[in-house]
Amino acid sequence: MMKLYFAPGACSIGIHYLLQEIGCRFELRKVDIRNGENFQAWYTAVNPKRKVPALERAGGSVLTEFPVIARYLAEQAPSAGLMPSDPETLLSASELTEFIVSTIHMQGFSRAFRPGKFAMAEADHEATRARGREIIQEGLLVVDRHLRQNTGPSFADGALFYILFWACERLKLEVPAACAARWTEFKSRPSAQRVFAAEEIAL
Amino acid sequence: MMKLYFAPGACSIGIHYLLQEIGCRFELRKVDIRNGENFQAWYTAVNPKRKVPALERAGGSVLTEFPVIARYLAEQAPSAGLMPSDPETLLSASELTEFIVSTIHMQGFSRAFRPGKFAMAEADHEATRARGREIIQEGLLVVDRHLRQNTGPSFADGALFYILFWACERLKLEVPAACAARWTEFKSRPSAQRVFAAEEIAL
Repeated sequence: MMKLYFAPGACSIGIHYLLQEIGCRFELRKVDIRNGENFQAWYTAVNPKRKVPALERAGGSVLTEFPVIARYLAEQAPSAGLMPSDPETLLSASELTEFIVSTIHMQGFSRAFRPGKFAMAEADHEATRARGREIIQEGLLVVDRHLRQNTGPSFADGALFYILFWACERLKLEVPAACAARWTEFKSRPSAQRVFAAEEIAL
Repeated sequence: MMKLYFAPGACSIGIHYLLQEIGCRFELRKVDIRNGENFQAWYTAVNPKRKVPALERAGGSVLTEFPVIARYLAEQAPSAGLMPSDPETLLSASELTEFIVSTIHMQGFSRAFRPGKFAMAEADHEATRARGREIIQEGLLVVDRHLRQNTGPSFADGALFYILFWACERLKLEVPAACAARWTEFKSRPSAQRVFAAEEIAL
């Protein structure tokens, strides 16, 4: 059985959502990153990069990096319909996943949530948070254009799920219309309910 | 014919290298990012995300995001041998590409090259550069372990090419042995010579 190493409400929630959507059996193993459990020896043995998500597969080997895990899961469960069969739609889903993870998350939300990782001076933290929110809002415009053109499900839903969760529920941002509609749709799904219950998140 | 939008010595050099390795015909279009040409209307029409690399394909549509372009090129030219046929080797190449781009480049080199994007206070720039070099060195240990286990070529070579160029030639860092050997091998290749000539880079 696959095992997902996750931290509640972290980006790993996007992989958790995909696991629910594809309907496979899996275990969850919580990693308490707030208290640095990802730096403990047992976890660095699982993922030397010390990040979540990490996915342990049936044979025991571990897969890392969000976009890689997301696409892998979609490929493993073709009947779930998260792996676009049209090559251009597939490329588009890959571009979107990449942009969400490497720009909106790592450049935007990282500044908004953890300004101290960017600005050393405490006095600059508020401006760093504001810059993060700017990057998020600009990025969501790109995402919104994508969603207007690509309405079907894909593995990019994993990435969409966590940044829309962060934008709409954690930062309570006003997001563009297609993003807002997608979040409303996501959170009404039984998979989302199961994810929030398992991660003990109350919306 | 495909057209690569690049900036000399930027990460786009990794895609440039792959284009040479697969031996296809392509055009180059320089984008002067130092002087903000990537913010000009003509370029935002090409790539609204305002980054290089961007790859315009024969039909005119544009592909963005380094890992997506790298894999796409490998898939287009199977005879070049950059698309691993073994599924596990393929996953491993994807993980490596992702880690290089989103961690070593965006967290490490970005701090080392452009500390002002992280620390607002000028006084913190040196410490930010140092933190960047730490992230690079830690990341290169992960890359080194990968290279010891996976010696064959793959589309990850595009990502390897540009961070080893930056580490060995621009920052003149001491890099782990397998990384150093790979860079020596890369730069001896005719493809690399053509890339450096076209980008007007003297090593």
